[in-house]
Amino acid sequence: MIDNHIHHGNALGFDLRRITWKRVMDMNDRALRDNVIGLGGPGNGMPRESGFDIVVASEIMAILCLATSLADLKERLARIVVGETADRKPITCAQLRAQGAMAALLKDAISPNLVQTLENNPAFVHGGPFANIAHGCNTAIATRAALKLADYVVTEAGFGADLGAEKFIDIKCRKTGLRPSAAVLVATARALKYHGGMAVADVSKEDVAALERGLPNLERHLRNVQEVYGLPCVVAINHRSHDTPAEIDLLTKRVEALGAKAVVARHWAHGGAGAEELAREVVAACATPNRFQFVYEESLPLWQKVEAIATKVYGAAGVTAAPAAKERIERLQAEGYGHFPVCIAKTQMSFSTNAALRGAPSGHTLDIREVRLAAGAEFVVMVCGDIMTMPGLPKVPAAELIDIDAQGRISGLS
Amino acid sequence: MIDNHIHHGNALGFDLRRITWKRVMDMNDRALRDNVIGLGGPGNGMPRESGFDIVVASEIMAILCLATSLADLKERLARIVVGETADRKPITCAQLRAQGAMAALLKDAISPNLVQTLENNPAFVHGGPFANIAHGCNTAIATRAALKLADYVVTEAGFGADLGAEKFIDIKCRKTGLRPSAAVLVATARALKYHGGMAVADVSKEDVAALERGLPNLERHLRNVQEVYGLPCVVAINHRSHDTPAEIDLLTKRVEALGAKAVVARHWAHGGAGAEELAREVVAACATPNRFQFVYEESLPLWQKVEAIATKVYGAAGVTAAPAAKERIERLQAEGYGHFPVCIAKTQMSFSTNAALRGAPSGHTLDIREVRLAAGAEFVVMVCGDIMTMPGLPKVPAAELIDIDAQGRISGLS
Amino acid sequence: MIDNHIHHGNALGFDLRRITWKRVMDMNDRALRDNVIGLGGPGNGMPRESGFDIVVASEIMAILCLATSLADLKERLARIVVGETADRKPITCAQLRAQGAMAALLKDAISPNLVQTLENNPAFVHGGPFANIAHGCNTAIATRAALKLADYVVTEAGFGADLGAEKFIDIKCRKTGLRPSAAVLVATARALKYHGGMAVADVSKEDVAALERGLPNLERHLRNVQEVYGLPCVVAINHRSHDTPAEIDLLTKRVEALGAKAVVARHWAHGGAGAEELAREVVAACATPNRFQFVYEESLPLWQKVEAIATKVYGAAGVTAAPAAKERIERLQAEGYGHFPVCIAKTQMSFSTNAALRGAPSGHTLDIREVRLAAGAEFVVMVCGDIMTMPGLPKVPAAELIDIDAQGRISGLS
Amino acid sequence: MIDNHIHHGNALGFDLRRITWKRVMDMNDRALRDNVIGLGGPGNGMPRESGFDIVVASEIMAILCLATSLADLKERLARIVVGETADRKPITCAQLRAQGAMAALLKDAISPNLVQTLENNPAFVHGGPFANIAHGCNTAIATRAALKLADYVVTEAGFGADLGAEKFIDIKCRKTGLRPSAAVLVATARALKYHGGMAVADVSKEDVAALERGLPNLERHLRNVQEVYGLPCVVAINHRSHDTPAEIDLLTKRVEALGAKAVVARHWAHGGAGAEELAREVVAACATPNRFQFVYEESLPLWQKVEAIATKVYGAAGVTAAPAAKERIERLQAEGYGHFPVCIAKTQMSFSTNAALRGAPSGHTLDIREVRLAAGAEFVVMVCGDIMTMPGLPKVPAAELIDIDAQGRISGLS
Repeated sequence: MIDNHIHHGNALGFDLRRITWKRVMDMNDRALRDNVIGLGGPGNGMPRESGFDIVVASEIMAILCLATSLADLKERLARIVVGETADRKPITCAQLRAQGAMAALLKDAISPNLVQTLENNPAFVHGGPFANIAHGCNTAIATRAALKLADYVVTEAGFGADLGAEKFIDIKCRKTGLRPSAAVLVATARALKYHGGMAVADVSKEDVAALERGLPNLERHLRNVQEVYGLPCVVAINHRSHDTPAEIDLLTKRVEALGAKAVVARHWAHGGAGAEELAREVVAACATPNRFQFVYEESLPLWQKVEAIATKVYGAAGVTAAPAAKERIERLQAEGYGHFPVCIAKTQMSFSTNAALRGAPSGHTLDIREVRLAAGAEFVVMVCGDIMTMPGLPKVPAAELIDIDAQGRISGLS
Repeated sequence: MIDNHIHHGNALGFDLRRITWKRVMDMNDRALRDNVIGLGGPGNGMPRESGFDIVVASEIMAILCLATSLADLKERLARIVVGETADRKPITCAQLRAQGAMAALLKDAISPNLVQTLENNPAFVHGGPFANIAHGCNTAIATRAALKLADYVVTEAGFGADLGAEKFIDIKCRKTGLRPSAAVLVATARALKYHGGMAVADVSKEDVAALERGLPNLERHLRNVQEVYGLPCVVAINHRSHDTPAEIDLLTKRVEALGAKAVVARHWAHGGAGAEELAREVVAACATPNRFQFVYEESLPLWQKVEAIATKVYGAAGVTAAPAAKERIERLQAEGYGHFPVCIAKTQMSFSTNAALRGAPSGHTLDIREVRLAAGAEFVVMVCGDIMTMPGLPKVPAAELIDIDAQGRISGLS
Repeated sequence: MIDNHIHHGNALGFDLRRITWKRVMDMNDRALRDNVIGLGGPGNGMPRESGFDIVVASEIMAILCLATSLADLKERLARIVVGETADRKPITCAQLRAQGAMAALLKDAISPNLVQTLENNPAFVHGGPFANIAHGCNTAIATRAALKLADYVVTEAGFGADLGAEKFIDIKCRKTGLRPSAAVLVATARALKYHGGMAVADVSKEDVAALERGLPNLERHLRNVQEVYGLPCVVAINHRSHDTPAEIDLLTKRVEALGAKAVVARHWAHGGAGAEELAREVVAACATPNRFQFVYEESLPLWQKVEAIATKVYGAAGVTAAPAAKERIERLQAEGYGHFPVCIAKTQMSFSTNAALRGAPSGHTLDIREVRLAAGAEFVVMVCGDIMTMPGLPKVPAAELIDIDAQGRISGLS
Repeated sequence: MIDNHIHHGNALGFDLRRITWKRVMDMNDRALRDNVIGLGGPGNGMPRESGFDIVVASEIMAILCLATSLADLKERLARIVVGETADRKPITCAQLRAQGAMAALLKDAISPNLVQTLENNPAFVHGGPFANIAHGCNTAIATRAALKLADYVVTEAGFGADLGAEKFIDIKCRKTGLRPSAAVLVATARALKYHGGMAVADVSKEDVAALERGLPNLERHLRNVQEVYGLPCVVAINHRSHDTPAEIDLLTKRVEALGAKAVVARHWAHGGAGAEELAREVVAACATPNRFQFVYEESLPLWQKVEAIATKVYGAAGVTAAPAAKERIERLQAEGYGHFPVCIAKTQMSFSTNAALRGAPSGHTLDIREVRLAAGAEFVVMVCGDIMTMPGLPKVPAAELIDIDAQGRISGLS
């Protein structure tokens, strides 16, 4: 609708170089990341630089997950800023009259879909904003529906507790009024051995020393949950067949030294029974005192919100920004978006923006490369480091291995 | 998979300027017709010119409609030529190892889906290649399934009988061995008044003189069916409420003067009962002698195939081609594709390539602008005149009118 | 100035897709033919499709050659149409206020520069519009200056007499009032043997039969000069060392059979003395009756002007045009440019637009691919066939062979 | 030659996304900064992202200025790295066989051109690499020629003494063996009042307080020359008619307090006589002890060279770099370019990379945005902050004011 509007005279005055909205397509198609569209002459729209993202990177996915009703969804869609005029005035979906059709398309998508586990336990799988680029939580509607249906609701906040948990608290909880009773921090021996310096290819081998070197990573996450977010925390040691007793023992002891309960969870192998102890500990944790708090107050300026997360959660020494990013933050602050939460887009591989910095790095700088306003989702995305919003395929894509025979039997789906 | 293959070293040696395969997306998005992709640096693939088509313009749609089995589908997909090397050797889907995954994706799509009319009559709606750019007929599998299930099967060949019918005969019938018993030519008074010179806005008004002036259009179609395709033909006058007795009378008489039966069909108003007389006439026509023939023989060179259609069906004086198109035809002939049928892509608004030439023009020239090999569909597309394979939206797109209220009631779907 | 104007707000309302003015650079740089400029964000202008031509293909070169004074030059520059608004109104250099600076830059270029031959004869070398894309004659100012200085002035009109001579007469003579007294048609045995079917590599070998087969080419040029342009004509046989007496004899006889004088010119070998006989014959021709006429009258519509040249000069059966080209011609006619001469851009290798059609082809069609208004040069360019306005380098460019040693001696300039 | 080589088969294996060489054109043409070239099909080269710079930003200009002979020039041209293969091997001009033709084109340009002042004093004006992007000094050949011809040679090093002087010393002196006897630091009251916070529009007004606030800028430059570069220094107060005695007095006193001589130079008003006192002081300074030193040693790694300049000259706290820039520095170090001097490209408006930071800022960070190898000029350019290598025109370009009348009189050249 944007390019069509421009083609038919651009009555809203889009500056073709300041359109921030991208098309989405759910393909791993790196060649679509950056392109020039509208070529080929007067009949084909106006030439401009644009690109494609995958669906989960779209603000619409974040909106769907934060909307509390169909009406709220439509209002949020209407507020999406898709570009600017030459004199830097924002242009919204409402000005394009697009929100009605968009909401109509999402009519069914907004209803939470109930699925069941192999043991017939109900679960909602609903909404998928990536936790590196967006806020990484399922829909508020599903969470609320679950709270009506069950005594205890467990919800996932994607990637590390520096990303998903922080955004769950500062964005989803703040916006919806939801308050967690406790947190479950999932740990694996292999990930911690990786953080202790092992190569990915080796992490199945026992290496207690590497595990020990990697433990500061878990410890920081645990401290963040307990002290920064103020929540009772149970550490679930997601058990793998390669884990050795020495490793599990070390893990357990170190967690308990920090005043939290560590439980070995074996649901991968044993189903519900394997998580029973974990469940009991979580129930117990929910009964303990709760000092829930946000990482920052809504009233803090955007820049200081980023500083709060960077220093309190990531262990960074400070925050820097490219000049254009800094100028954009100042402009957003001046334009009245200062009360929005910030949504930090960074790698999930490290507390820092450098994926190679393992463990619990300190003294690093969080450098803001780019700033994106999500006026409908009601947060400001701070892109730190290189974040892909459109993946690419590997040298031998899975498609090469997939086949079907004359009887319709598909093979090669790994 | 093409751009991914190139990004990872281009082992097949694609000449980036000779990739003919486009992405498809079912949006009316003119800004995607011509673009430059792969921009933004070494991580984002290789820069090249490309574009998007809509799904029905893809060779895959034509293949799906001509395939006789899942195995045949996969073989045809494997033979698609997606580009060329620098020394002009074709590169196929098989070389990309893509046909297995493609066929697996189409596993369910290839099965004909049976729907029913409001009167509970069964019908297959299966496959949708556009008759201006592709061959315009439903799937061979659906047609064959229908022939197993019913005594009489009626199938549609899209757009005018110069497009759909010709391709039904020369492509679908030739390739599948199917042979029609009779043809139904659908006519409306309004279309013929348009061909007689009336403005589109006026065609609901009675104008016997305009109808008379437009009748040569119908007469040429009728003669084509009877003499060029050699089929018994019933003309179905698709009745509209605005049609007047004088118009219907003229239409009927002129058709019968050409030795065919004209039947007023009122199924739009009366359902099945409205088409009963038509059905009886079609059954009768099926019993009459049938001199079915192709417009051209398979062995004719590609150029002469186009000439045969242009002169016998379109009333053209001859065929011309842009130098590059001519050279391409000669190269395809030399490379062994000379036995393929040709699939002419032209406007449905005229027997000529000029949409403004109404009635039954003569002496015009069919100018081939571009030639596309459909090695999987097994025909050579001759693009004549300007044919859009990606539509655009109007100034006020329907989306602006669509809305949904808080109760989920959608409005504005016209 | 165009892109700068657009960057600063586009007050004139350029439609970015309808800018016809290109940058020029005198490099053989095919990669600059078609490009997308203005990329990289808001500071870098507006994205749009554009391209580079070489200098001699610019309308400015044609203007320089047709201008009669500095004031006329500036007025013509002011009238150049560089693009259109979205509602198809032309935008001129005058609206950009560019003509003053352009004329100031050309202040010295407009003065004819007098050079001398090795025998110290004066000559003007001034102006260089290519005869395939532009009108192919030197400046009107130089020709007039020469007429003030000498009794006889010889001027070149580039490429074959179907291109340069026709444009000299219909564009340069018409616009300036200059009238030639006679024409010299330059012929070589090797070119005529090529037109008789010999390969380029072989044309140095004697082949009287090939020469005979190629003579219709010369005969048509001669007839055009005598009958269509109405001028006394001397044929100068530009002698090459490989030419044999039998070839020269045949050439001479056939020319004289057509009522013209053929003179062997040996100035390449003998300097001025080698052209003395030719000079005497030209002087004699100037004294014979002169029925000079234009190929078409100014008042004829543009389309019929092209038809006149095509049928009278090129031996074509008729003229066709791509729909967009036809529409453009009609629009230019309606906008008041119908009185302009036409300047046909076509290959110099053939009377037709197909470089491979040698000799004197008949019955071919002149197909207009593209139409360009040269409002300052005061003609309408009809681009027929593929005409390059920016050359490319060969596989081994001359630059690879050029070198310079430590003493500054350059080598490799062939 | 690069695009031509690629078009003809790319035997050298250029990765089209890793070509670093740009075309140059001496126009203020922002729309050419970033473009996509090679569009329009197989005949027009290969599509790729590229751009234009102005001539003074080209490595060739830097090479011309550092070359010591024609042979050295050609060798340096041969070593220019123009791009990389897919496996990151550098490709040089020598591999393209371009250096001979390039050197031949520069044959005359390399000879210093002697001009004279209005008082007939000889001067060389030869070479023009910008001091923000390149090393900002005239040619080594001209400087050496001058040293043969005169007792004292004064040469300019462009922009502030943090840019031109540092590069004169660390690049030009290091590479050529030239050693200055003394430095002249040019100061104006207006520039220092600007550094003291005045608006540009106001700097002609007397404001001793602003001058006092701005003096730390001059003091740092002076200290850099004296202590970091180790040179006797004379401060030339470039007198303007608006300067007041109070301002000149303050300036003089503060310079002398730092142990240097300040001389008011009035050559703008009085010609040579106005600079006589300055000249005498410079002669005297040349006789004083000289502790000339480089800012860093050749053997220091590239990163530490930047740190040395940043901390010693710019007053920065440290150096940061975008990940890609950091990786490139490491790669260049590993590839054997570690012994090259660094050439910092930054704004001339501030000691920092932020043009708005006036005076003598401390504690700022030098952030390296991009790294460019100049293998022929023999330095590594560290692009810090936003540096334009292709300017743009203002809203009303000078061209709009330029005109010429019928008599050839040009007006509007301001």
